[in-house]
Amino acid sequence: MSDISMTSLPANYRAVVFGASGGIGSAFVDHLSSDPRCGVVYAGARITLAPVPKVQPFAFDLRDETSIAMAAQMMSEGGPLDLVIVATGVLHREGLKPEKTYRSLDADTMAAAFAVNAIGPALIAKHMLPLLARDRKAIFAAISARVGSISDNRLGGWHAYRASKAALNMLIRNFAIEQATRNKHALCVALHPGTVDTALSKPFQAGVAADKLFTPDHSAAAMLYVLDAATAERTGTLIAWEGQTIAF
Amino acid sequence: MSDISMTSLPANYRAVVFGASGGIGSAFVDHLSSDPRCGVVYAGARITLAPVPKVQPFAFDLRDETSIAMAAQMMSEGGPLDLVIVATGVLHREGLKPEKTYRSLDADTMAAAFAVNAIGPALIAKHMLPLLARDRKAIFAAISARVGSISDNRLGGWHAYRASKAALNMLIRNFAIEQATRNKHALCVALHPGTVDTALSKPFQAGVAADKLFTPDHSAAAMLYVLDAATAERTGTLIAWEGQTIAF
Repeated sequence: MSDISMTSLPANYRAVVFGASGGIGSAFVDHLSSDPRCGVVYAGARITLAPVPKVQPFAFDLRDETSIAMAAQMMSEGGPLDLVIVATGVLHREGLKPEKTYRSLDADTMAAAFAVNAIGPALIAKHMLPLLARDRKAIFAAISARVGSISDNRLGGWHAYRASKAALNMLIRNFAIEQATRNKHALCVALHPGTVDTALSKPFQAGVAADKLFTPDHSAAAMLYVLDAATAERTGTLIAWEGQTIAF
Repeated sequence: MSDISMTSLPANYRAVVFGASGGIGSAFVDHLSSDPRCGVVYAGARITLAPVPKVQPFAFDLRDETSIAMAAQMMSEGGPLDLVIVATGVLHREGLKPEKTYRSLDADTMAAAFAVNAIGPALIAKHMLPLLARDRKAIFAAISARVGSISDNRLGGWHAYRASKAALNMLIRNFAIEQATRNKHALCVALHPGTVDTALSKPFQAGVAADKLFTPDHSAAAMLYVLDAATAERTGTLIAWEGQTIAF
């Protein structure tokens, strides 16, 4: 089903995917668990997923740090981690649409975007970074977005989402700087998945050319290829699915 | 007391300072009200300040949108605004210190930083941008910080503050894009004030060379000079007190 092989990670590498029930998150779990080199994939979602071979589901809630700390405790018993992917994120939900104008700005909507897209991933980093392997390549990657690049911003709008992804990019940069002091082979990166056909992008696909709208399977495979190829000098950057660095 | 003259703004220009009780905010109010070209300075703080010539105090709370909307209603009765400065911001407060490591990350601390440094200024923009003059130069400026630049980040740490200022920079960029469709002379910019001798920076001044630590008076004057000289092509950027553009 997948020919992904994370050859830069050790045999029986240990991976974690937060947000494993989402479109991209579940594709990451599928690819990783199909990789013969992979030992285990911890697959976190709000509701515990059904176990499949090599996949160890766990429940967590981004807004409940205790649930993340408990997951970390469980994983730490199996040894160091090689790959942590944060594939959570929200752009819209029932009753909420990304703002087209500043006249639609709403404090609660903005706070919710920061909570899910920046604070949640930061709490995950707090509990996952200490578990990463220290003597070899180890990866912490969070799904960000090109629209979180300030310098790349030409269209405006989507205020809360854009601002929360810019905040996430800063946090990833910060984590990279701190992680480099502990492991010179470590990578902390933000990833741009492309425009992927998921529930998140569904209302916004009208203007996207068919060959620019990826399946979650395709996007996740491309990002894993990028992560496998990446060396430590790319830490602290925002990388697109095809490997290009995006300016902040 | 000041030789600042905003010659790029019309005679009797109308200015607003949010955060007028802070070190930098009160210096802005002093400089502007001393400028013979200035007609009025609306000076907003959590508690209504004492009125002085040309200064019209008002009360607002960043976390209370109604208070901002009421201030906007009051100002709109006097005609269009020429200059709006957001000089609010928090780096630390009693019991809170900027994080030195990701191990100190705290969801509530982060949420508070986003609320004050990003969401509050966004709410101010929502209610102030529609009041800006539309047929001539008009300025919306928010105090950001060099440490909010992701690409400039070499030291890490200060997670919540850095992330919230990166979010603010994105919002300013977004506002600039939208404002440009309404007024091609409009400026929406983020400002880096330098390291200023205020309550905000007090605990962190030890490593700052004496000639790099500015008085609020000096910093505010420098930023007003930059704003007066700036033309529309600088909209949507982060500008330092000495006029240099800082990459995001």
